[in-house]
Amino acid sequence: MSWNSFGRVLRFTTWGESHGPALGAVVDGCPPGLDLDEQQIQPFLDARRPGQSKYTTQRKEPDRVKILSGAFEGRTTGTPISLMIENTDQRSKDYSEIAQTYRPGHADYAYDAKYGFRDYRGGGRSSARETAARVAAGAVARLVIPEVSITAYVCELGGDAIDRDAINLSEIGNNPFFCPDAWAAKRWEALVDEARKNGSSLGAVVECVATGVRAGWGAPIYAKLDADIAAGMMGINAVKGVEIGDGFAAARLSGEENADAMRPGEDGPEFAANHAGGTAGGISTGQPVVCRVAFKPTSSILTPVPSITRDGEAADVRTKGRHDPCVGIRGVPVVEAMMALVLADHKLLHRAQCGG
Amino acid sequence: MSWNSFGRVLRFTTWGESHGPALGAVVDGCPPGLDLDEQQIQPFLDARRPGQSKYTTQRKEPDRVKILSGAFEGRTTGTPISLMIENTDQRSKDYSEIAQTYRPGHADYAYDAKYGFRDYRGGGRSSARETAARVAAGAVARLVIPEVSITAYVCELGGDAIDRDAINLSEIGNNPFFCPDAWAAKRWEALVDEARKNGSSLGAVVECVATGVRAGWGAPIYAKLDADIAAGMMGINAVKGVEIGDGFAAARLSGEENADAMRPGEDGPEFAANHAGGTAGGISTGQPVVCRVAFKPTSSILTPVPSITRDGEAADVRTKGRHDPCVGIRGVPVVEAMMALVLADHKLLHRAQCGG
Amino acid sequence: MSWNSFGRVLRFTTWGESHGPALGAVVDGCPPGLDLDEQQIQPFLDARRPGQSKYTTQRKEPDRVKILSGAFEGRTTGTPISLMIENTDQRSKDYSEIAQTYRPGHADYAYDAKYGFRDYRGGGRSSARETAARVAAGAVARLVIPEVSITAYVCELGGDAIDRDAINLSEIGNNPFFCPDAWAAKRWEALVDEARKNGSSLGAVVECVATGVRAGWGAPIYAKLDADIAAGMMGINAVKGVEIGDGFAAARLSGEENADAMRPGEDGPEFAANHAGGTAGGISTGQPVVCRVAFKPTSSILTPVPSITRDGEAADVRTKGRHDPCVGIRGVPVVEAMMALVLADHKLLHRAQCGG
Amino acid sequence: MSWNSFGRVLRFTTWGESHGPALGAVVDGCPPGLDLDEQQIQPFLDARRPGQSKYTTQRKEPDRVKILSGAFEGRTTGTPISLMIENTDQRSKDYSEIAQTYRPGHADYAYDAKYGFRDYRGGGRSSARETAARVAAGAVARLVIPEVSITAYVCELGGDAIDRDAINLSEIGNNPFFCPDAWAAKRWEALVDEARKNGSSLGAVVECVATGVRAGWGAPIYAKLDADIAAGMMGINAVKGVEIGDGFAAARLSGEENADAMRPGEDGPEFAANHAGGTAGGISTGQPVVCRVAFKPTSSILTPVPSITRDGEAADVRTKGRHDPCVGIRGVPVVEAMMALVLADHKLLHRAQCGG
Repeated sequence: MSWNSFGRVLRFTTWGESHGPALGAVVDGCPPGLDLDEQQIQPFLDARRPGQSKYTTQRKEPDRVKILSGAFEGRTTGTPISLMIENTDQRSKDYSEIAQTYRPGHADYAYDAKYGFRDYRGGGRSSARETAARVAAGAVARLVIPEVSITAYVCELGGDAIDRDAINLSEIGNNPFFCPDAWAAKRWEALVDEARKNGSSLGAVVECVATGVRAGWGAPIYAKLDADIAAGMMGINAVKGVEIGDGFAAARLSGEENADAMRPGEDGPEFAANHAGGTAGGISTGQPVVCRVAFKPTSSILTPVPSITRDGEAADVRTKGRHDPCVGIRGVPVVEAMMALVLADHKLLHRAQCGG
Repeated sequence: MSWNSFGRVLRFTTWGESHGPALGAVVDGCPPGLDLDEQQIQPFLDARRPGQSKYTTQRKEPDRVKILSGAFEGRTTGTPISLMIENTDQRSKDYSEIAQTYRPGHADYAYDAKYGFRDYRGGGRSSARETAARVAAGAVARLVIPEVSITAYVCELGGDAIDRDAINLSEIGNNPFFCPDAWAAKRWEALVDEARKNGSSLGAVVECVATGVRAGWGAPIYAKLDADIAAGMMGINAVKGVEIGDGFAAARLSGEENADAMRPGEDGPEFAANHAGGTAGGISTGQPVVCRVAFKPTSSILTPVPSITRDGEAADVRTKGRHDPCVGIRGVPVVEAMMALVLADHKLLHRAQCGG
Repeated sequence: MSWNSFGRVLRFTTWGESHGPALGAVVDGCPPGLDLDEQQIQPFLDARRPGQSKYTTQRKEPDRVKILSGAFEGRTTGTPISLMIENTDQRSKDYSEIAQTYRPGHADYAYDAKYGFRDYRGGGRSSARETAARVAAGAVARLVIPEVSITAYVCELGGDAIDRDAINLSEIGNNPFFCPDAWAAKRWEALVDEARKNGSSLGAVVECVATGVRAGWGAPIYAKLDADIAAGMMGINAVKGVEIGDGFAAARLSGEENADAMRPGEDGPEFAANHAGGTAGGISTGQPVVCRVAFKPTSSILTPVPSITRDGEAADVRTKGRHDPCVGIRGVPVVEAMMALVLADHKLLHRAQCGG
Repeated sequence: MSWNSFGRVLRFTTWGESHGPALGAVVDGCPPGLDLDEQQIQPFLDARRPGQSKYTTQRKEPDRVKILSGAFEGRTTGTPISLMIENTDQRSKDYSEIAQTYRPGHADYAYDAKYGFRDYRGGGRSSARETAARVAAGAVARLVIPEVSITAYVCELGGDAIDRDAINLSEIGNNPFFCPDAWAAKRWEALVDEARKNGSSLGAVVECVATGVRAGWGAPIYAKLDADIAAGMMGINAVKGVEIGDGFAAARLSGEENADAMRPGEDGPEFAANHAGGTAGGISTGQPVVCRVAFKPTSSILTPVPSITRDGEAADVRTKGRHDPCVGIRGVPVVEAMMALVLADHKLLHRAQCGG
């Protein structure tokens, strides 16, 4: 039940702060015999890596992962896999302001209220850099579910949604926004650019689709696939909402509209729709598992916001320094990683109880 | 990590099927010395109880709770509290149709795909009757957090939202919809009545507000208060979405709009707004903790929906029998219970690590 | 991580006090499709049942188990199995003495020190009656490992050990001591009779052997089969020691003496000895899994022992009433149950990670 | 429930293999604000360090610990503490023999049976080097319980026990055996020397005493202090038995002999004896918590033992290379560490449920 661990059978723990020497993850319970070396993890870290375009933070981190245990001669051994990523661009700067003043929307005040003090350098443990460790862990999880294909993308940025009819997954890599709609990507360039120049920030919605999930993963009642996805996604920095399938929109449909009719198929039922997002009663149905995740706008903005100091004095805060104008963008690889981790865990859980 | 348990320090397990002899919950880790007898649990079960108006299922269940352990001379002892609710209105009927045919939107097919067979009577373990056990457990959790006040209500039904300026919490008990807006409640009567008459169903959104939560509960990274709330709520039957604070709407705000400015207060900061819903970095800030939960429309409808039989043959399904035209309504006490369970657990967790 | 639960994938929770209305267990994670009805559980409860000879407590309890959930048409469904045993012989008596005075060797003082007060009736939660719930859970666990045969017996009573050359497992049921050596059983009659008449009590050592455990169950490091067996056994009332294989005697052997030589066999290695007790590195080797469990003498004795009252006054305690002169005897079915629960759990755990 | 984690609230996970680049531990749930730097951990690692006398393995490892996260300005922050120890003396040698042949008593065969293959270099994950990570974690745990004093020592080696009347804790550091009896230490020199020269090995019993544990830590039923100590100790390499208090000897006492009489004291009861080893009903009584741990003789010996190869062929095994003639000796700091980890965890658990 530790606080920095996630998962039931395939369980991982992350550690590390933004400005400490390193951060990492320990992945426990991974099946033995899977091909694993750094090259299988690195591409996912590269996708999340900062400083790749002007639309993300300018912190430069190579984010090179090292495997410290759990693999031998290129294969997983079944023992814990320790992954480490060294911090290299911990820009030495004066943190006195951030140390003494609470940045609104950040965890500064909450950490102090809880722990009495905090590692204030770059947000410490609450920094989005922690997600690098999850992305590394997620790359291991993918090895457990080779039959599943997971793709996430930004489907809405600053309130501007993609055209669902224009979704082309091969576009995702062609723009700096993980956007599957080329036209929307164009519009977002202007949006993010303006936010960046104004020192403002934008929110985003990330959608994630997992195909190839067989029917039967998940479990009643508190281990529903939906519940674990919700927990995993809501644990990502800046996330404030999670939907499965139609989510909140389903609450506006009638029972007839929301019904996913079935008809006999080759291989289990064929469904006429997927309002449910691939689960029923918390268990996968064989349809694509679909979730959407809402990222709030980055809390770090140049506009001064009234706040208080540690001593309880009034103080306006203006967050200088490097930051993402829209944290949702780099959230895409993190959402994918969490989906992989949940599904891999449930594959093993299902095998434990039901075999096969 | 069991599948039917929830919580970390205050941990509960539920058991039972819709048409078995009983259902119940075991609550473990409850502090000793709290006043507890059946009378403190029963009102919450009564609020959830079916058959109280024509807008909910006509199943008649007294839902009388019995405390089988963990209390002595009217006080909790610190040992596990076993709560049992006997099923009495297990109407004897012919289940042959439901046994052989998968009801779309229900867990029938998924359970069979997972377990190879299922207790089909009334949905078995996937029946919303299970939530009675959580409501009972939630009543115990409330004893752990007497300083916290938790109120949930339906804020949208069938796509018709309440007027936020008209919210009057004292109205919640005056209508069969747990609606805090008297005018909306009037409109919903017609809406639900029509759905009921047509054998259709409606979705709903439930909002839950917890006041009195001190700053400092919650924890990084995977035990964020937000993550546990999301997991708890998403584990409720028919729930497809969860938001904290502004949730998905926050993704459409700019950083300036979304900032919750602080100024010095008597007792910690005073906040100018609560877009964040009472948490930062997964830890409570002292503001009200606010979440919203989307319930899909009841899957049981009278309109025939194409489906398949266990043998893979095509078959139209029309769900006769007793059902809620809008399961979101009776979800209100369940949402409150899950909020109480999460907060009570985090109060104890915080005390474990940080004292106080 | 709840305090009254045990197991990782096959996880059970027990609840109940000696003099409450009932006690029970919830078994979660059981594979679906196993034949289960009360008749499969009852024989194990009958073996543990008190009042069957003059050598055990005279409390009369039918210990009838009821299955409240998790089985349908005689088979497990994969959902939690709720088992309940009603208390019937809660002899109404005056507990004022035990309520005010701490019985040495009992948990009275420790419970008060922890919880501030306690359910003093018959020991409350710390009563050995709780083990009835484990025995019921253990009967379910046995269904998960039909290929494994588990037999426990008393191998030493009041310091008088069985003759290992005289072990005959078919003798176990022929005497009231679960003793596999007919001559020792004879001697023990006199021993226990004398202790009973003197109001004294005796300790015992229970040995448990599980055959049919395939190589490969268990896991590094903190989930070693040995570690889980140790935890399970040490959680039984009155147990003060646990050994795997030669245990403490192994500490007196040389490396040569302790080596379990192997030679090629039909089906994996054949071992020349089993000093290790069936595990290496915490993982089963295919040899019989062997443990020994030390039960202290029953703390309830008629000889007055100096003690204190709740108010801190000196008071001699003489425990009247019904009690087992040697709790180790009725510990035999409990040890078997815990072994079954650990092995069944590890079978499923192994399947989760390694398949097959 | 991960396999390489231990603890409930203060939970740690270890990772690493004997011949990988490093090994380490992540300690989660540690209270904030405790003074922590490498200097507080290093002495415990130094005590466990190999190569310090001719009576332990000649592998030379500086075992320098690095704190990678969870501390800031010399204090714990409440976030996970990542500890890493680099392996430096991974002697490059030919492992072809050990790779192909199973060493009796080692985990070689069991690992292969479980995982299908293994990291055979130096025992991989099953190497006693893993215990360095626990010792580091234990040093952190000690910070949580400054009021508790934990001392372990070898009380029996090769069957030769110390004289209990000659115990002098200040002698422990004066000999290479952690022996509190100077005369016994003298005798053991000859014993171990002979074993070492003959390529044989010896077992040992380690006793651990924790004073300053207040009454009330621990919990029913499966989280008994005794059960967690048993699990923790039995998870140490080469351990085959655990006792609390008198342990197996208690099974040979009468109820009168085993009774720990109480009389009124200044500060709770004073006890006339401590047969129970400081617990009752799984909860501490305020007496010293005492356990004894049996270590088998090192399995690596020079005498050839019949075994088999991976291909199932017969092969005699003679374990060359560096090894401890008695692993129990270096087990002393590991036993202390596990005791600290269990007690610290239960202190926090107690605070969670009962405050104070």
